[in-house]
Amino acid sequence: MTIVLISAQFRPGLEGRLPAGVEARWYSDGGELLAMVEQADAVWLHQIDGPTAREAVARGTRLKWCNVLSSGVDWLPLDLLCERGITLTNGGGIHAQSVAEFTVMGMLTMAKGWREVVRAQDRHEWLAEPPGKRELLDSQVLVIGAGEIGSRIAEILRAFGAHVTGVRRRPGPGELGAEEWRGVLGRFDWVILIVPSTPDTYRMFGPAEFAAMKPGAALVNFARGTVVDQEALLASIDSGHLGGAFLDVTDPEPLPADHPLWSRENVHISMHLSGRAQDLLFTRGEKRFLANAERFVAGEPLGHVVDPGLGY
Amino acid sequence: MTIVLISAQFRPGLEGRLPAGVEARWYSDGGELLAMVEQADAVWLHQIDGPTAREAVARGTRLKWCNVLSSGVDWLPLDLLCERGITLTNGGGIHAQSVAEFTVMGMLTMAKGWREVVRAQDRHEWLAEPPGKRELLDSQVLVIGAGEIGSRIAEILRAFGAHVTGVRRRPGPGELGAEEWRGVLGRFDWVILIVPSTPDTYRMFGPAEFAAMKPGAALVNFARGTVVDQEALLASIDSGHLGGAFLDVTDPEPLPADHPLWSRENVHISMHLSGRAQDLLFTRGEKRFLANAERFVAGEPLGHVVDPGLGY
Repeated sequence: MTIVLISAQFRPGLEGRLPAGVEARWYSDGGELLAMVEQADAVWLHQIDGPTAREAVARGTRLKWCNVLSSGVDWLPLDLLCERGITLTNGGGIHAQSVAEFTVMGMLTMAKGWREVVRAQDRHEWLAEPPGKRELLDSQVLVIGAGEIGSRIAEILRAFGAHVTGVRRRPGPGELGAEEWRGVLGRFDWVILIVPSTPDTYRMFGPAEFAAMKPGAALVNFARGTVVDQEALLASIDSGHLGGAFLDVTDPEPLPADHPLWSRENVHISMHLSGRAQDLLFTRGEKRFLANAERFVAGEPLGHVVDPGLGY
Repeated sequence: MTIVLISAQFRPGLEGRLPAGVEARWYSDGGELLAMVEQADAVWLHQIDGPTAREAVARGTRLKWCNVLSSGVDWLPLDLLCERGITLTNGGGIHAQSVAEFTVMGMLTMAKGWREVVRAQDRHEWLAEPPGKRELLDSQVLVIGAGEIGSRIAEILRAFGAHVTGVRRRPGPGELGAEEWRGVLGRFDWVILIVPSTPDTYRMFGPAEFAAMKPGAALVNFARGTVVDQEALLASIDSGHLGGAFLDVTDPEPLPADHPLWSRENVHISMHLSGRAQDLLFTRGEKRFLANAERFVAGEPLGHVVDPGLGY
């Protein structure tokens, strides 16, 4: 019998649906996870903090497969998973639609000054002039990290008539390579970050990158807070060079109540809500997990495997 | 010499660019318009109230052409224009992109509960859960009025993966005819109104239409406030049947500060800003006007002519 340890949050969606030969055990918190992990052949780690995840993998000496629902895997003990040869699968792609919808919403609300309209309605005040008059049509957009999410964002933006350039390690036609974008940053009205969090992307956007951006352009970060040097971001906002920022992610999270980013008029904070702003998140995650569980008991290669050495 | 009377707001963009044989005269307010209209062969009516527009057309006995920047022409004395055989041209299409961007923004902000996020940022509060989890992907959308604006909205929504059905008088393949939509209203998650304001569309959306909508569905009105029976809208919102409403237009405009629509949690008021939420509005309007001025002096048919008898 293959024992799979799963967060109890997925019990309603998974119970009775696991393949023959698989016994599910359900944990409700980190304590239960650590108490049961020694018997488990596989584990679905969910809403567990980093230290608990590390401890669980360390104790789970039988583990051959670790699944997560998130796209980002930077909260996991990648070194341990790598060392022990545990197959890691993630939710890459499951969040593509909801993050793309959130990204485009963020750009539109900045372009139209929508936050001012919300506040005016709260005051029962009829605005005479639009607080924002920009259009996505004919805007120049750079999407740094053209994976599943970045590609979906690009596809939707193109329907608005935006000119989108993607950046990826192995660029396709019309795309830029991993370092090529730095030389042409000044061309773009919008720069969208949707890279994985790895040592290579840590603070990849700092003073030099903000200085190279087109005056008045906007930064949109749906990657990780640590990808951006937040001091440099604030300095560029306060100097008037950067036109605005939409930050789904910050460093740290949650952002402390006294952090200066909260109160800058052209900084928008969306509290890492984008990937979970979908009714079907668990349904999609469970469907993918079930398909992988079938493969796992059959000894077949799993889908959506992450290389823990690369971090994506 | 052909005399054309133009709002002084367009003077910076038009002066020196009018075709040979055309003399422009500029008015800064309704008084100047009325004082000069008797000599004019053509007039561009802009930001003039309805009574002044009527008076101007009545006094302008030489007028052969009347131009406006708006798409809607319900504020004009259509009966007089019709009776006098004055050619009417409008800004139809000039607003298509900005209204489409605004419409999609409105739908996304409702789907994700974005207003709650704006208010939370104003409180410096990190929300733990997304206030809205709907996606446009796989949603069913009815666009009533599939003209230039409605078609652009549909095109963009399809890129999100929404299923869009258009309604027009002469339906194409997959579209519904002018009355066919009433029988299938219950199918749709979103109903978008973008019809012209005519006697036929006056209060076309009333108690019966709200009752026929799918429970929890949303109404999106970018047509005219008078197209919707606002009492019925409020009743449907307050009963919990209607999931929400996004109203770019209301009746009257501006909406009085004590009107109940302002304070309903699932009603969003955008103050008829959508068409003007574009930097290029005047540029696009002036370009179209110049092209028509060339045709006017050459005696050729004008572009973007509105039938004042039909009102669109």
